[in-house]
Amino acid sequence: MVNLHEMGKLARQAARHLAVLDPDRKNQALIALADLLVDQSGAVLSANAIDIHLAEEAGLPPAMIDRLRLSAASLAELAGDVRKVAELPDPVGTVFDQKVLANGLRVHRQRVPIGVLAVIYESRPNVTVDVSSLALKSGNAVILRGGKETLNSNRALLKIIQETLTACAIPPGAVQFVDSSDRADVLALIQMADDVDMLIPRGGAGLHRFCREKSRIPVMTGGIGICHLFVDESANQEMAVKIIHNAKTQRPSVCNSLDTVLVHHAIAEGFIPAIIEHLQEAGVEFRLDPAAMECIQGVPYSPEMVSLAGPDDFDTEWLSLILGVRVVGGLDQAIEHIQFHSTGHSDGILTRDEGNANRFIQQVDSAAVYVNASTRFTDGGQLGLGAEVAVSTQRLHARGPMGLEELTTYKWVIRGDDHVRE
Amino acid sequence: MVNLHEMGKLARQAARHLAVLDPDRKNQALIALADLLVDQSGAVLSANAIDIHLAEEAGLPPAMIDRLRLSAASLAELAGDVRKVAELPDPVGTVFDQKVLANGLRVHRQRVPIGVLAVIYESRPNVTVDVSSLALKSGNAVILRGGKETLNSNRALLKIIQETLTACAIPPGAVQFVDSSDRADVLALIQMADDVDMLIPRGGAGLHRFCREKSRIPVMTGGIGICHLFVDESANQEMAVKIIHNAKTQRPSVCNSLDTVLVHHAIAEGFIPAIIEHLQEAGVEFRLDPAAMECIQGVPYSPEMVSLAGPDDFDTEWLSLILGVRVVGGLDQAIEHIQFHSTGHSDGILTRDEGNANRFIQQVDSAAVYVNASTRFTDGGQLGLGAEVAVSTQRLHARGPMGLEELTTYKWVIRGDDHVRE
Repeated sequence: MVNLHEMGKLARQAARHLAVLDPDRKNQALIALADLLVDQSGAVLSANAIDIHLAEEAGLPPAMIDRLRLSAASLAELAGDVRKVAELPDPVGTVFDQKVLANGLRVHRQRVPIGVLAVIYESRPNVTVDVSSLALKSGNAVILRGGKETLNSNRALLKIIQETLTACAIPPGAVQFVDSSDRADVLALIQMADDVDMLIPRGGAGLHRFCREKSRIPVMTGGIGICHLFVDESANQEMAVKIIHNAKTQRPSVCNSLDTVLVHHAIAEGFIPAIIEHLQEAGVEFRLDPAAMECIQGVPYSPEMVSLAGPDDFDTEWLSLILGVRVVGGLDQAIEHIQFHSTGHSDGILTRDEGNANRFIQQVDSAAVYVNASTRFTDGGQLGLGAEVAVSTQRLHARGPMGLEELTTYKWVIRGDDHVRE
Repeated sequence: MVNLHEMGKLARQAARHLAVLDPDRKNQALIALADLLVDQSGAVLSANAIDIHLAEEAGLPPAMIDRLRLSAASLAELAGDVRKVAELPDPVGTVFDQKVLANGLRVHRQRVPIGVLAVIYESRPNVTVDVSSLALKSGNAVILRGGKETLNSNRALLKIIQETLTACAIPPGAVQFVDSSDRADVLALIQMADDVDMLIPRGGAGLHRFCREKSRIPVMTGGIGICHLFVDESANQEMAVKIIHNAKTQRPSVCNSLDTVLVHHAIAEGFIPAIIEHLQEAGVEFRLDPAAMECIQGVPYSPEMVSLAGPDDFDTEWLSLILGVRVVGGLDQAIEHIQFHSTGHSDGILTRDEGNANRFIQQVDSAAVYVNASTRFTDGGQLGLGAEVAVSTQRLHARGPMGLEELTTYKWVIRGDDHVRE
């Protein structure tokens, strides 16, 4: 039985310690963690082998087993990521909106950690290290709850993290792990509103909905992307095929990969066959609306790879090599389709018309809006944040990739000369 | 029966319209609203007289009746506030974090409205106008739910707001009012997570807790302030008395007024009698811890105004002329007391010791941290935000006074030259 209440208390104490910890001390701990990850990779890999074995015995799908697999190389890469986090600027203490008011009060805002984070994730054990290092750097304590398929790997990783904390004289409450497969513990954790300040679910739509509905802690939901590209009449069609190919196939299992292409009717007849020709080579399967289907009559394609879109197909995040294609009357209908079907993650326009690009940017209100680029860039690393703890598709606190700054809040500091309010 | 679902749909449509509305058009609507408030003040005051009459018949406490009372002067002031909102800079469209990445992608973030707000408030009808004008200016649609004691006043104000929207060709869904006294409608409203993007409760602790527990919409809680001033050994005691007097008595019924004074033991014997002497003239009643009580033996005071603090007294937001006083061993114990008892709203230190001021700022993690000033400055108007929709005491999205910028979020805009991810 996990004592969540006790964990919450330890996390709060550790958070107070971390909030005022010298940046150098935090970075030393990160470097120590990276070293230990490499030194003790044998122990982690042994534990991971047990998880893999159990997963295979349980008949988990190969894609899931892949996600939980670690290797010496992936651990070395993980250690490298931790070293990179150590090198990032420390967001805590940054002063902004500094001003002297007419009455002489000196006011500024100052970044402080959020406090205690809870992160609930599924099968990837590298999240354990990623999140711990970002929490530590941003001065937050964190309570982790990983998937039960990775319990052994996570225990081994936590042992390394705890050793690091001890060596660096950081309280053990800074990074804690809910060592339990009991779902009742998840429910209890997400209701600990007094002990946890921010809840970050990382997983499928079901987990996000569960957290949103049951949690009393402010939740950062996200990571669900039904992503669109609209190919305007004026698009460079050759480049458009290349961008769609990249957005769909470069890593189809992630949230910023492409789900639906909207094609301007004036170019549909030539362009849709071109997409099918170039993407079916990469194993892409298509779901076409009736107008798109008409465009490929008489064009050679593998019938098993192309079908008419079903009623839910434009509301599905594929996470695989499936692509929806729809013909639209023009920019307005494209925007309307996106407003209705997008999850507000990443949507783009391919066009040579600057006016249309600007209207698209203004009217499409997704976390990331693109002009003439692949949706695959919605990522903290790619967009210059240095790292990423999650991608938010909600509107409060942070939108899109969340880096270190998004793991902070601020306080107002007001200095007076014995000021009183009139 | 109120059709909340229909209201949600209208709000979403209006929000799309408002999000791209020209700033001048929004300001014209605000000025038109201010004019109409003055022109039609007779109708509002008649409606308000009915609310006052019903409240008196129902035997509501005088303080509550005061809060719901409007007058020609208060309506003129309200109209003036709306004009001031029109003059504030428009936050929507502001570009920040603009950069060109190494691969040539041009990236920036751009402020956009939150979308649809829901605001639940209690007896003050001026909130109806305040919130509507801030929502309109920041490009958000809003669904209002005021207290049942002010139903007639709010109907009259909504009529004016709707007339303004019509005259300015803004969809009526921009400002809607839940015209119902049924608490089931409140529960239904706070669960409309698909239709509402941000919930702002404005009222007592019970309302905030209710929203936090039952809502599926991200909630901005706040406005509950157990506020502290620590009088350090080195404080200028004469100024300290003046600041405490201001923080306690200038407007005791509001969240940023002072609740507890912590006094350094080295000066307690002289200082505590001085506070009692100066504040009891203003009608302040004291709750003293045993050590503070000892300091006033032999000093003249009205016994009915001074009593020993009970077990919950240091955890009570007084909202009235009551003041807790406790003697502490020094800065560390003061910080510890604040960490334990503060609601994280406004806390300050009175000191001439710069080192202690800095330690206090670093270690006290409240929304507003003060050095040598009254806590009464925690207010959007006082701190230079121009206006305020609420004071947040939660950690996500916004902390402390929330002005127009805090009613926005941002989107990432990424422009490429046919960029694909490698």
